[in-house]
Amino acid sequence: MDSKTNISTLMQSLGQSARAASRAMARASTAQKNAALLHIAEAIRAQRHLLKQANAEDLATAQAAGLPEALVERLALSDKAIDTMAEGLEQISNLPDPIGEMLNLRYRPTGIQVGQMRVPLGVIGIIYEARPNVTVDAAGLCIKSGNATVLRGGSEAIRCNTALAALVQQGLAVAGLPPDAVQVIETTDRAAVGAMITLPEYIDVIVPRGGKGLIERIAKEATVPVIKHLDGICHVYIDDEADLDKAIRIADNAKTQRYAPCNTMETLLVAQGIASRVLPPLCKIYQDKGVELRGDEPTRAIVPMNTATEQDWRTEYLAPILSIRVVAGLDAAIDHINTYGSQHTDSIVTENYSKAMRFLREIDSASVMVNASTRFADGFEYGLGAEIGISTNKLHARGPVGLEGLTSLKWIVLGSGQIRT
Amino acid sequence: MDSKTNISTLMQSLGQSARAASRAMARASTAQKNAALLHIAEAIRAQRHLLKQANAEDLATAQAAGLPEALVERLALSDKAIDTMAEGLEQISNLPDPIGEMLNLRYRPTGIQVGQMRVPLGVIGIIYEARPNVTVDAAGLCIKSGNATVLRGGSEAIRCNTALAALVQQGLAVAGLPPDAVQVIETTDRAAVGAMITLPEYIDVIVPRGGKGLIERIAKEATVPVIKHLDGICHVYIDDEADLDKAIRIADNAKTQRYAPCNTMETLLVAQGIASRVLPPLCKIYQDKGVELRGDEPTRAIVPMNTATEQDWRTEYLAPILSIRVVAGLDAAIDHINTYGSQHTDSIVTENYSKAMRFLREIDSASVMVNASTRFADGFEYGLGAEIGISTNKLHARGPVGLEGLTSLKWIVLGSGQIRT
Repeated sequence: MDSKTNISTLMQSLGQSARAASRAMARASTAQKNAALLHIAEAIRAQRHLLKQANAEDLATAQAAGLPEALVERLALSDKAIDTMAEGLEQISNLPDPIGEMLNLRYRPTGIQVGQMRVPLGVIGIIYEARPNVTVDAAGLCIKSGNATVLRGGSEAIRCNTALAALVQQGLAVAGLPPDAVQVIETTDRAAVGAMITLPEYIDVIVPRGGKGLIERIAKEATVPVIKHLDGICHVYIDDEADLDKAIRIADNAKTQRYAPCNTMETLLVAQGIASRVLPPLCKIYQDKGVELRGDEPTRAIVPMNTATEQDWRTEYLAPILSIRVVAGLDAAIDHINTYGSQHTDSIVTENYSKAMRFLREIDSASVMVNASTRFADGFEYGLGAEIGISTNKLHARGPVGLEGLTSLKWIVLGSGQIRT
Repeated sequence: MDSKTNISTLMQSLGQSARAASRAMARASTAQKNAALLHIAEAIRAQRHLLKQANAEDLATAQAAGLPEALVERLALSDKAIDTMAEGLEQISNLPDPIGEMLNLRYRPTGIQVGQMRVPLGVIGIIYEARPNVTVDAAGLCIKSGNATVLRGGSEAIRCNTALAALVQQGLAVAGLPPDAVQVIETTDRAAVGAMITLPEYIDVIVPRGGKGLIERIAKEATVPVIKHLDGICHVYIDDEADLDKAIRIADNAKTQRYAPCNTMETLLVAQGIASRVLPPLCKIYQDKGVELRGDEPTRAIVPMNTATEQDWRTEYLAPILSIRVVAGLDAAIDHINTYGSQHTDSIVTENYSKAMRFLREIDSASVMVNASTRFADGFEYGLGAEIGISTNKLHARGPVGLEGLTSLKWIVLGSGQIRT
C-alpha cells in the first residue's frame, strides 16, 4: 500500500472508532462527563514534567527546523500554560450540561405534545495549528457536549499532543467513558487532513482553527460541513448623533486593545456631521499609539494621513493599521459594511434609538452591537463559558461557538396513543 | 456563447438580483410582507382562467411527450388546487413574523447586554418537480421569512410557473417590495440547476424537493449548503411493556394511513416478550389491507409471511410493504434503528417511563416519538403552520422545516459605551 492508501485506511478506522464512541458519549451522564474533565485536569497537573519533556522535544525539533520565533512561542508549554489548561477543564466541568435539555414542549390539538431536545452533533473534527492548549480546550468542550472528537494539531506539537491525548483517554476511561471519544491523529502526514474532511459518514462537522489559507483550503475541499470564519473585517460606525466620549472610547478600544484578534476593528466609518469633532482627538490617540492611519479624501481633509484605497476597505490588517472613511450617514454606513465587511462583528455608536434599531436589524453580521467595542465578540464575554471557534456561516451556529454550537435540536413527540387521521 | 456560458451568465445575473432583493426583504415590515401575501392570493383567485390556460398548455405538452399519468395528475391545476394555493398564502400571512425576534437578552458583568436576533438566511434556492403549488407555497414561506428566493420547478410546469411568478411579482410590487425577491427560472435547460447549486456568493441555501436521485445529485454537486432528506426509513418499536391497544393502533396507522409519505413506517420492531400477543392481530389488519409482510425468522414463526433480508432493513418501500423484526428488547431496538435507520422519524410504544426516556435520548433521528404515530412528523402537525421540506441534516434545521428553518440567529450586543479591558 502507498502512503495515501495507508492514511485513508487509518482515517477510516479512526472515524469508525469515533462514531462508535460518539454513541456512548451521547448517553453519558453529566456526572460522568464532569468526572472525566476533572480527572484529566488532575492528570495534566500531576504529569506536568512528562508534558514539559514532550514539549521540549517538540521545541528542539521546531527550532532545528527553523520555525519562526512567533510560532515557537505559541508552541511552548510553560507551567502557567499547563495550569491554564487544567483550569479551563475545571471551568468547563462547571458549565451547565447542554445535552438532554427539552424546549418548547407544547400540546397540539391532536393531543400530542411536541417540542425539541438538545443532542450532541456526533463526531467533531478539529484541525488546528501547533498550539497544545487547543488540544485540551477542544477535547474538554467536546466531552462536555457529549460529542466524540478527532483532533489534528500542527505537526510541530505532535509529541506534546500525543502525551496530552494519553492523559485525556485515561481520564475518560476512569470515568467509564470510551477513550476513543478523543483521538489525536498521531501521523504528521498532511494527507490525513484531506482524508479527514471527506469522511461525512464518520465526521459530522469540521472546525478548522488557524490561518486563512488553511481554512480556505479546508472549506473548498471538505465534503463534511465546516464551521468557520475566514476574515474579521470589523467596523465601528460613529453616527452624527453619537456621544463623543463613548465614540472615542469605543473606537480606541476596538482598534488598539489588541491588534491581532479577528474581532478587532479594521475600518472606522464616521458620519460627516460629526467627523470634524471626533476625528482630530481620536486620530491623535491612534497616532500616539503608533497606529498607521489610511483615510479617504474627506478624512484626510480633517486629519492628514495616508490615502486609503478600495483595497483597504477589503483588508483585515491584524496589525496597527486602520482605514477610515467619512460617510453621509446611517444608510451609507450600512451599505459600506454589507458590501465590504466579512459578516463578523460591527458596531454603531449613536444615541438615536431608531438608528440603533435599524443598524441591529440591517447589518448582516454574526455579531451586531450598539455602543460597545467589537472586542466583546467572544465566547467568554458573551457568557458561553468557552469557545471552540467563531463562525461567519449563516446556517447553524453564528458568531462565537460554545457548547451549544456543538449540539443540535431534534424534535420529540410525547403521545398517549395518538394516530393521524 | 455556448448554452452553458449563457446559462451561467443568466444565473449570475439572477443571483445578483436576488441578493439585492434579499437586502430589502430583510428590512421589510410585517405589514408589507403580509400585504404582499394577500395581494398574491387575491390575484391567484382573480386570474384563475389565465392560470388554467397556462396549465392546459403544460398538460398538452406533457401528454404529447408521454409523461406518466401520475406525474400528469400532479401537474394538473384544478379550481380546488387554485383555491388551496390562495388559502395557503392567507394562512402564511396569519403566522407570526419570525424576523426581528430578540431572544435571551441578558446583562453580563461588564454591563453589556447580550442576546440573539432572528434574521432571514438571505437567498433560498428551491428545486422541485412539476408541481405548481410548490411555486406558491415556497414563494409564500420565503416572503414571510424575509428571504429572497430563486425557484426552479420541473420543466413540464414551465408555463404555469411563469404565469404564477408574474402574479407573485405583481403582489410584491403592490406591497412596495422588490419583485426580484421571487424569481422563477424561465429556462428549462438542465444546466440551470448545476449553475444554481454552485453560486454560494448569491444563494445561501438550497432546498431540493423531489425524488431521491435528484436530491443525491444536488447534495453531491452543490457548493451551497443543502437542506434535505434522502430517505425516510421510519421505525415503530413495540416494547414488551407496551399497551397492546395503543401498539396496534399506532403500528397500523404508521404504515397504512398513507403509503407514500416519507414519515410512513417501513420497519416494525417488536420486543420478543410481546411478539406472540401483538403480531397475530396486527398482521391480520395489515393483510386485510393488502400490505405485503416480510419478517425475520422469529416473526415468521408466529405469523407466516415472506422472508425479510438484510436489504429489507435498509429499504424505504413507499408502498404497501412492511418488514418486521423481533428484537430482544430496547437495546436491540436502538441498535437496529441507529444502524439501519435514516435519522428521519422513529417511535416507541411503551408504558415504561425509563425506557421511553432512553429511547427519546438515544435515538439519533430528526423526530423521536413516544406512543404516537410516525405520521405526525409534519410541519402542520408540529404547529409550524407550513413546511418547506424535511431535513435529516444534523446542522441547522432538523425534521420539518418551517419559517424558522429559513432564518438564523445573529448575536446582538446592547451597550452604553462599554470597552473591553
